[in-house]
Amino acid sequence: MTHVSIIGTGNMGQAISSLVTKGGNTADLLGRADADKPLTGDIVVLAVPYPAVEEVLGQRASELDGKIVVDITNPLDFTTFDSLTVPADSSATAQIAAQIPNARVIKAFNTNFATTLTSGSVGDAQTTVTIAGDDTDAKNTLADVVTAGGLKALDAGSLKRARELESVGFLQITLAAAERISWTGGFGIAD
Amino acid sequence: MTHVSIIGTGNMGQAISSLVTKGGNTADLLGRADADKPLTGDIVVLAVPYPAVEEVLGQRASELDGKIVVDITNPLDFTTFDSLTVPADSSATAQIAAQIPNARVIKAFNTNFATTLTSGSVGDAQTTVTIAGDDTDAKNTLADVVTAGGLKALDAGSLKRARELESVGFLQITLAAAERISWTGGFGIAD
Repeated sequence: MTHVSIIGTGNMGQAISSLVTKGGNTADLLGRADADKPLTGDIVVLAVPYPAVEEVLGQRASELDGKIVVDITNPLDFTTFDSLTVPADSSATAQIAAQIPNARVIKAFNTNFATTLTSGSVGDAQTTVTIAGDDTDAKNTLADVVTAGGLKALDAGSLKRARELESVGFLQITLAAAERISWTGGFGIAD
Repeated sequence: MTHVSIIGTGNMGQAISSLVTKGGNTADLLGRADADKPLTGDIVVLAVPYPAVEEVLGQRASELDGKIVVDITNPLDFTTFDSLTVPADSSATAQIAAQIPNARVIKAFNTNFATTLTSGSVGDAQTTVTIAGDDTDAKNTLADVVTAGGLKALDAGSLKRARELESVGFLQITLAAAERISWTGGFGIAD
């Protein structure tokens, strides 16, 4: 059994928590007021908006050593919906990994709208969680949690591919914000 | 009726030609040996690999003035499958548009594997052609050709979004090359 600590109690945190427990694994859902509670998970999911990650790392950095840390963020400039706030040749995940070098940082869930994690489908396609990172064992551990919860998991490659996953997430959010797709749809993956 | 000139007779050129004629529009499919034939299309599709675009623009630049020019390229470094060959803050489409400022350059088809244009589906989802560009009328003209041929068309936003579409294309190609998805699958879009 895998224990997952989720920092962030918004739509995504709640949906990921449900997914974890649906598969017979266990989850702690931690909010802003829980900064003094220990992170007991094998996996720690940073389910907060990208601008709030800095604060979490400030509070938790030493606790993350050796843990699988999952970055789910889409670092959009939400004032313009026209760019990301990270350098064009980098990613939020790479920035986070640089700050906690002893953690096993992977990217996942940023291409999934919360509703598709709960419903299990994107249109007629089963929901797929894309996972990128340099630690294969970490990716496999998360993939097992995802598939146990009834979704598909897809290894999207190395940590460098987080950049492309963030482009997918960015595009998907702009399309939904412009009402060209719905928040229950988006990119599905057929294998 | 819209007339489409397609430069490039590979899988993508052929699939786009079939799509165009299926919808009751007309297509010329032009190969390397046809450099002296005039471009009579209202729309000109550059269906050649990105490194070959330079040569086409050298031969055809003045003919493209005022025309809707469709860039379908994915500018991958095919020696590494690990990066694009255009600057991280730019796109192949932006580079092409800068070279032919009097053409109406849009991005399309780069997120579609050729087989999905012909089959009409990505898994259980109807194939969607994503279109980005700054010329709304140009995007609508191409969208009409696409929908007449039985596929869905989705306005993906401004020319700046070509960068994200190229990230999607890049990711999709690396996944298929790694046999994590098939060349008949990939990203489908649910609206």
